Amino acid sequence: MQRKTLLKRELSKLGIDGILITDLLNVRYLSGFTGSSGCIIITPKNSILLTDFRYQEQVSEEVKGFRIIIENSERSLEIRNICKEYEIKKLGFEDHNVTYGFYEKLIKRKIRLKPVQGVVESFRIIKSENEVEHVKKAVKRAESAFRKLLPHIKAGVTEQKLALQLEEFIKREGSQSLPFNAIVASGPMSALPHAQPTNRRLKKGDLVVFDWGGECGGYYSDMTRTVLINNNNISHQKELYYTVLEAQKRAIKSVFAGIKSARIDAAARDYINDAGFEDYFGHGTGHGVGLAVHEKPVVSWRNKEVIEENMIFTIEPGIYLPGFGGVRIEDMVIAGNNGAEILTSLPKKLKIIKR
Amino acid sequence: MQRKTLLKRELSKLGIDGILITDLLNVRYLSGFTGSSGCIIITPKNSILLTDFRYQEQVSEEVKGFRIIIENSERSLEIRNICKEYEIKKLGFEDHNVTYGFYEKLIKRKIRLKPVQGVVESFRIIKSENEVEHVKKAVKRAESAFRKLLPHIKAGVTEQKLALQLEEFIKREGSQSLPFNAIVASGPMSALPHAQPTNRRLKKGDLVVFDWGGECGGYYSDMTRTVLINNNNISHQKELYYTVLEAQKRAIKSVFAGIKSARIDAAARDYINDAGFEDYFGHGTGHGVGLAVHEKPVVSWRNKEVIEENMIFTIEPGIYLPGFGGVRIEDMVIAGNNGAEILTSLPKKLKIIKR
Repeated sequence: MQRKTLLKRELSKLGIDGILITDLLNVRYLSGFTGSSGCIIITPKNSILLTDFRYQEQVSEEVKGFRIIIENSERSLEIRNICKEYEIKKLGFEDHNVTYGFYEKLIKRKIRLKPVQGVVESFRIIKSENEVEHVKKAVKRAESAFRKLLPHIKAGVTEQKLALQLEEFIKREGSQSLPFNAIVASGPMSALPHAQPTNRRLKKGDLVVFDWGGECGGYYSDMTRTVLINNNNISHQKELYYTVLEAQKRAIKSVFAGIKSARIDAAARDYINDAGFEDYFGHGTGHGVGLAVHEKPVVSWRNKEVIEENMIFTIEPGIYLPGFGGVRIEDMVIAGNNGAEILTSLPKKLKIIKR
Repeated sequence: MQRKTLLKRELSKLGIDGILITDLLNVRYLSGFTGSSGCIIITPKNSILLTDFRYQEQVSEEVKGFRIIIENSERSLEIRNICKEYEIKKLGFEDHNVTYGFYEKLIKRKIRLKPVQGVVESFRIIKSENEVEHVKKAVKRAESAFRKLLPHIKAGVTEQKLALQLEEFIKREGSQSLPFNAIVASGPMSALPHAQPTNRRLKKGDLVVFDWGGECGGYYSDMTRTVLINNNNISHQKELYYTVLEAQKRAIKSVFAGIKSARIDAAARDYINDAGFEDYFGHGTGHGVGLAVHEKPVVSWRNKEVIEENMIFTIEPGIYLPGFGGVRIEDMVIAGNNGAEILTSLPKKLKIIKR
């Protein structure tokens, strides 16, 4: 079914006869419009897209099945006029996206408003075949980029240089944008789950965490690999690595449509805790990926979501030992009725760099 | 004076005894914190920064003079606790940034709130010496990148390839991030002021618009140059180019501390209109640049702002002829009492590419 039709069916349940979509990812999801300024109003029978003159040409190429209005006046006034024309008595709006300032403007226009939560997101969480294809291409682009980076990883090179090269390769593979700045974190820096690349040079014995992603058609990928720069004694690094890897495999194995996401988290966390690292895995096990690189579902002990068929999310446990280093291994999976399909194909055997 | 001290002095004028800063650029401006999750509360005597465990190490390195609180619970609850501890009776919040959803959460915590507009932005609009230095470096980085790109510009190469190369050069010059994706728009595409690079190949006779920027210490630069791929008859392209250039020079010449920004816009627009192109310059003449690449002041006929000393903004008139092509020339300037200092140094004589 068309996405906007799905949304039309939700309106009466929400107690509204129109909905204003301002989150640009939701605008893109519903209409295909990729501009940086625009919003959508959906009524039971009509679909309207508002944007400004800069996007006149682009919107007519990208968007079908919507009435397009190029704004002539302040947006809140345009929205009021649409409410009048389409006899919208109560307009829903996305409360995670509309600012308080814009809410006040709408109220001053005498529009009756109702905040709604996560409506389009509840569609986005289940991926269509076409969306899965895009995510798979985003995975391929990110993986090809990493394969090209591998020969450059060696002692003496800086994190920043590697991160920049990796980003260049990701773009050259066809990604129009990056889901986030690539993370390259070596030695003690690898103990910070969200480290930004520094001018630190890779050293012998370093664990080096790479966390990066690609893009295709607006859909992202997200993955992490940890490599080791060889040294005389690397037994502690190896122990960390294979503890995380076993935890990660267990979490993946636990996935099926119907499981609570907290149980996937527990599959990884219990193993890490039992291995004696219970204080060193501070973040959740995973998150959904799609038009946003962080979206629902949340795979965490804090969460009560149930995994459904065709949800795409990451599995990325880690262990972080302050001052020493960290390991994180992240794959993307898609949930099926009998288990998970792993979308990532980069090998997970510990890569020991001997350069 | 310290920025947070400036803000403390504003509180009583605003009728509040505390202010919540959630806009991350304002958080960075006030505290130096560059993480992606955090907020600040300022009272007449205290400065508090809230963030989460991921940024524990980073925040202690980046931020001085604030009490740091690492969140233990939901943010709205942490904010309520701070309001109690510091006896904040009425808390201001940034209405352009706080979502309606978060506003409701705060209200449910029984915090008395008052929306405020543009307080920190009113400090940010005037640049300090240190900020000017950062912007100048951001300009240098962008200019060096473009100089490196020049030999690659020729008939047959695609817009996308040039844009990607330009972005790589900008990053290699030291920019940690890009203010926006580089625009390369050739031939008929150059008639779209916000065109995204396509796989179109540059052809003889094309006007090619490059619009890009660099970064330094969080501060951005933004500039545009238009080049021409040589052909037998290029008189029409030249006419367009030199009309825009003269308009741009007149606008720059008009700048001084005390002028209304609409008069700068008129200096460019009147010339373009008089030359017979009044229907083909649809956007404003410029915008402020700093921690955001689009910030105050707005240099447009719609605006009533008065330019003050040490405001940094762009001057970027253009002419866009649908189906034929466009020209835009953009410099950055800093306003002084007797005129403008031009921050951009790339030549503006029409570059005719003979390859």
